[in-house]
Amino acid sequence: MSRIGDRPNLPVSAARIALDIDALAAITEPGRPWTRRAFTALHRQGRDWLAERFRAAGLETRIDASGNLIGRRAGRKPGSGTLMLGSHSDTVPDGGRYDGIAGVVAALEVARSLADAGIQLDHDLDVVDFLAEEVSIFGVSCIGSRGMAGVRPPEWLERRADGITLSQGLVAAGGSETADPPRQDVKAFLELHIEQGPVLEAEKCDIGIVTAIAGISRIEIVVEGRADHAGTTPMGARRDALVAASKLVLGIERLATDLSLQPRHFAATVGEFAMLPNAANVVPSNVRLLVDVRSEQREDLDMFAAALKELCASVAAQDQASISLRQISDATPVPMDAGIGAILAGAVEGLGGRHRQLASGAGHDAAFMARISRAAMIFIPCLGGRSHAPEEFAANDDIAFGAAVLLETVRALDGQISERDV
Amino acid sequence: MSRIGDRPNLPVSAARIALDIDALAAITEPGRPWTRRAFTALHRQGRDWLAERFRAAGLETRIDASGNLIGRRAGRKPGSGTLMLGSHSDTVPDGGRYDGIAGVVAALEVARSLADAGIQLDHDLDVVDFLAEEVSIFGVSCIGSRGMAGVRPPEWLERRADGITLSQGLVAAGGSETADPPRQDVKAFLELHIEQGPVLEAEKCDIGIVTAIAGISRIEIVVEGRADHAGTTPMGARRDALVAASKLVLGIERLATDLSLQPRHFAATVGEFAMLPNAANVVPSNVRLLVDVRSEQREDLDMFAAALKELCASVAAQDQASISLRQISDATPVPMDAGIGAILAGAVEGLGGRHRQLASGAGHDAAFMARISRAAMIFIPCLGGRSHAPEEFAANDDIAFGAAVLLETVRALDGQISERDV
Repeated sequence: MSRIGDRPNLPVSAARIALDIDALAAITEPGRPWTRRAFTALHRQGRDWLAERFRAAGLETRIDASGNLIGRRAGRKPGSGTLMLGSHSDTVPDGGRYDGIAGVVAALEVARSLADAGIQLDHDLDVVDFLAEEVSIFGVSCIGSRGMAGVRPPEWLERRADGITLSQGLVAAGGSETADPPRQDVKAFLELHIEQGPVLEAEKCDIGIVTAIAGISRIEIVVEGRADHAGTTPMGARRDALVAASKLVLGIERLATDLSLQPRHFAATVGEFAMLPNAANVVPSNVRLLVDVRSEQREDLDMFAAALKELCASVAAQDQASISLRQISDATPVPMDAGIGAILAGAVEGLGGRHRQLASGAGHDAAFMARISRAAMIFIPCLGGRSHAPEEFAANDDIAFGAAVLLETVRALDGQISERDV
Repeated sequence: MSRIGDRPNLPVSAARIALDIDALAAITEPGRPWTRRAFTALHRQGRDWLAERFRAAGLETRIDASGNLIGRRAGRKPGSGTLMLGSHSDTVPDGGRYDGIAGVVAALEVARSLADAGIQLDHDLDVVDFLAEEVSIFGVSCIGSRGMAGVRPPEWLERRADGITLSQGLVAAGGSETADPPRQDVKAFLELHIEQGPVLEAEKCDIGIVTAIAGISRIEIVVEGRADHAGTTPMGARRDALVAASKLVLGIERLATDLSLQPRHFAATVGEFAMLPNAANVVPSNVRLLVDVRSEQREDLDMFAAALKELCASVAAQDQASISLRQISDATPVPMDAGIGAILAGAVEGLGGRHRQLASGAGHDAAFMARISRAAMIFIPCLGGRSHAPEEFAANDDIAFGAAVLLETVRALDGQISERDV
């Protein structure tokens, strides 16, 4: 996977990164690699191991009220604010040794490398493992970063799963039932993550500099036809909800493909599909589709929503179906900090690597950190673009290259922000 | 619904039919009209009421080894064989006051009307309520008629549901674990049934004379694509199993519509549809479809199967999916007896009614009786073509007209068969 020969003289250690990745990977549900879901005993075990590594790197380590594991390397100028690096160590079921973990380990490696080189920054440096970035047992995601940014919905605390409330889950994870106020000291947040897509690998690019984290719109469509006897109802006398729904699926794919031909990220997926009565000998009467729409531009989301409405109306008329649409959720795109993007690009070039701009189709903790701080992300390549699957893979050398980019960027930001803000 | 004014002078009583229909309808799961599934206490209660009515009509009443309730009006010439009329009194869940019941009640009314008129046939006349024509709790259908015809698969006896085997269910229903030999005395079998389709009502026709009971072919299709992250995987880099499956659904509908334009019954339905992983943010990797194909012609079933294979190959190539087909079951079409059909047509005309030929898209006990006897069916109109639903409705006058057609046909057959066979 590595695109930089043997990458001599990186200011970080790929070997140390490899050790951390392997050690965390070993803490998994047996026979189900790699599973370490938030709010489980395994996750706490992984956290304990990480906290030990944080402390061994000289970091002052704690868990905040929102359940985030934070290791601090204090700066030379107390009160000048914090530079923050991090990602998450929880996984989806069966999913991934690298998604989130690579970012936490790279952040830790930056702190270790600063210590090795005897460099003390002006700012405090926080290395963070956010709690429950993935959709958790409680059905919601980014619990830790939302909490840190002060935007975790209070009613979530009452959600129940596996016999406990989220409130109780937070306490068990070392957090608290009462949220801290939003952090106001963070001057910049940086996150390294695997791409989870095929672009960097295909273009032999070392680093993707994230332009924006896509907005996600979820739209539920319900198609109502009529249940009829499959044997006796002539083809021309049917109102088959599955036939109408199939036209919607193909129409959605066509609309999304058209919008994705622009040089902006756009994708739409019918990820959930359920049919009634789902009996061999009955014409389908009802289909529920859930459409997941992602775009880095608000206007593309809106354009798609309008076209989808028209599509539904036209299929409803054509197939004598009744079709209703309901917006389930709508998160607007979050642009990343362009100034930090430029510094990241310079760092990649300084280290002899190749970079390109890229939107993130997936959600990330950085989207919530952007509420309270300048925020930026870099992607590193991953094998075949696969993620959330056991096959997910990234090369240690690629993670190390990304960690070196973070290290150089942190040093540059430390100087710049001090000059400007303090 | 009735198309024959007040239908004066029918040789049967619509009032008696109405009473029977209403009395059986009252024997239903409370709050779930109309449900009286085979092998339940309610079904036995309905049977007890029916047996009482059989006996009141002077019929010698018993339950055979296959669990069929049979009432006999003995003929004048012992040993000359049996004319049989009947259908079934079990229902699907929530489904129907008329499906099957109308045929049992009409058969009983024929016997009662013969008694009223003091007519004794040469042949024995059997009125039958077949056991479990609908797909039963054991997952299989036409248990009684298959048993009577000697084609009930022996391994079915071991099927389990609700804590009992089918073998035990048969005994509880008054039958036996050991099947009787196939009946060899039945000279003709006649079944009245609601159409379960919209044709007779739309064409204001009193009686459909069934040309054939459709063959049913069930084909399972599995589409394999690739699970990818819905947010990060570009539209052009996907292998979306749902997109491929939607093309199949529309292709199947197109093929079936084309075949149904011939003057022969043809229908194909994707009745079952299940998708994996069925998660909002994952590109669908797997879809299973079950296709139900009905035709009155063997060659149409085969032509469709061949076209479906081609369709799957073309979609697989276009969408980089892997698509497999498997034939789950295949029942060949069963033609009804054309000679009896002609007698039925004459009877309808003699009674001043209109008839047309019609294939049965649904399966019926008559398909199994055709293995051991000449067999024929008539359809009566039902409201909106609806069946297997609480709204299912047929007019008592229409049932009475059908019963009169059966009565005239039985009398004609009694004479004809005697002349020819005895």
